[in-house]
Amino acid sequence: MTSAPGAGVVRTPLRVIYGDTDLAGIVYYANYLRFFEAGRNEHLRACGLRYRDFEETFQLRLPVAEATVSYRSPARYDDLVVVETTIAEVGRASARFEYRLVRGEEVLATGHTVHACVDLEGRIRRMPKELVDRLAAPAAMASP
Amino acid sequence: MTSAPGAGVVRTPLRVIYGDTDLAGIVYYANYLRFFEAGRNEHLRACGLRYRDFEETFQLRLPVAEATVSYRSPARYDDLVVVETTIAEVGRASARFEYRLVRGEEVLATGHTVHACVDLEGRIRRMPKELVDRLAAPAAMASP
Amino acid sequence: MTSAPGAGVVRTPLRVIYGDTDLAGIVYYANYLRFFEAGRNEHLRACGLRYRDFEETFQLRLPVAEATVSYRSPARYDDLVVVETTIAEVGRASARFEYRLVRGEEVLATGHTVHACVDLEGRIRRMPKELVDRLAAPAAMASP
Amino acid sequence: MTSAPGAGVVRTPLRVIYGDTDLAGIVYYANYLRFFEAGRNEHLRACGLRYRDFEETFQLRLPVAEATVSYRSPARYDDLVVVETTIAEVGRASARFEYRLVRGEEVLATGHTVHACVDLEGRIRRMPKELVDRLAAPAAMASP
Repeated sequence: MTSAPGAGVVRTPLRVIYGDTDLAGIVYYANYLRFFEAGRNEHLRACGLRYRDFEETFQLRLPVAEATVSYRSPARYDDLVVVETTIAEVGRASARFEYRLVRGEEVLATGHTVHACVDLEGRIRRMPKELVDRLAAPAAMASP
Repeated sequence: MTSAPGAGVVRTPLRVIYGDTDLAGIVYYANYLRFFEAGRNEHLRACGLRYRDFEETFQLRLPVAEATVSYRSPARYDDLVVVETTIAEVGRASARFEYRLVRGEEVLATGHTVHACVDLEGRIRRMPKELVDRLAAPAAMASP
Repeated sequence: MTSAPGAGVVRTPLRVIYGDTDLAGIVYYANYLRFFEAGRNEHLRACGLRYRDFEETFQLRLPVAEATVSYRSPARYDDLVVVETTIAEVGRASARFEYRLVRGEEVLATGHTVHACVDLEGRIRRMPKELVDRLAAPAAMASP
Repeated sequence: MTSAPGAGVVRTPLRVIYGDTDLAGIVYYANYLRFFEAGRNEHLRACGLRYRDFEETFQLRLPVAEATVSYRSPARYDDLVVVETTIAEVGRASARFEYRLVRGEEVLATGHTVHACVDLEGRIRRMPKELVDRLAAPAAMASP
């Protein structure tokens, strides 16, 4: 359901349901963060990772420290939208994802999330080299 | 935020937000189950329990086995609605909650949930007598 | 993203995200109704309809009058689940959809929704013959 | 359910339900924007406004143009949290709300939203003086 067309951009298509909308007839503002999460999950999968692997394999978690959304044009019921996700930065103990929500050529919203790297007790931990390397190379690993 | 006016009925007021609604201008049908959960939580609290106590104190959980909603009249944005919750039945290894969502005198929806009583490994367990006794008597314990 | 393999069964695959789960580590009980809605939308699309067409083309709506979910086995984060949707009955002024949520061969949940057929003022209306005919034949029209 | 203790700060208490949490055992990151919306609604009410009045009385809407959340410490199931909402700025055609989510003395999250002022066709409109005046004075009008 996901393709990785360019330099580390992973595209995740999503169909907007009634439950995503609000009485203004458009997608409720909090639900863009749900869409971004779906994009992030697929980005990790394209890196050969799944978020659940972080805990099991690395004994690490990546809780969200910061999230922003900039709303340009509303997504609507039954739209087939695409989340374009990139990893903008992998730090010693953090990672930054960036998102564009598009409908065809039109950009509906942009945003980013910053994640801390913590162990299962919540202490900040350096990101292991294997993880850094994988996060850096989604496109190379996105073959089906 | 909750009162227990009658024979075991616990009343939980809730304010409908934009995020509860959908593009039909009314509360999205799945969100009635969120409202019912809020009522169930307050019912347990009125019994001197909190749902988190089940796990810590009794090493038990009450997963939902069945849920129904009957929609009569829509709840709308900014409505101050009340969930009226009762425990209809406490079986050997199950409990049944019933709900009425009202706005003033008007009944907007009714429904029920059936919960299994399981241990932390998911095996069906008999409900302990202390728990059965407490669940039977919310009104008596609803002092503030 | 949807196929209609058999006699009127429309299959809609969905990826479970973190935002669908709750602290029990499984999909929150209300979110099964979101999954069912996604299945319903794709069933209508397989009938050559979109839910938004009801209002524009037929000046009708199909509000939910009743919903049930029977939970058998929990759906979990990152599961690729499939909603199998059928129209069980189309009455004079109502329709009944039935759902099975599966993960591979395993049935996770079943349920149904009953919808009234109303006009834009909310009055019960007989379902037009064209609509009845289309709803009866999803498989025949599910070519891309 | 809301008090306005200080210079324009409106406090809205909320009880965290299971449906707000995710499998990490904490409130899902998108749901903080739901909490902020509840705070914003109560802030408007403390100004003698309701969001629904914008459309009916002023023929205006205040769609969200930008939202941010900074997550400091997780909110958990059954927490009684408080959203502290202020209007930081009312511009010619925009407004900025700021939020702190607290549990007792502890700050769990902060954030802001920026809203455009548009008419019912979506064109940017100058905020009417009556609206600006009201938004500037929540505390004065927050009598119970």
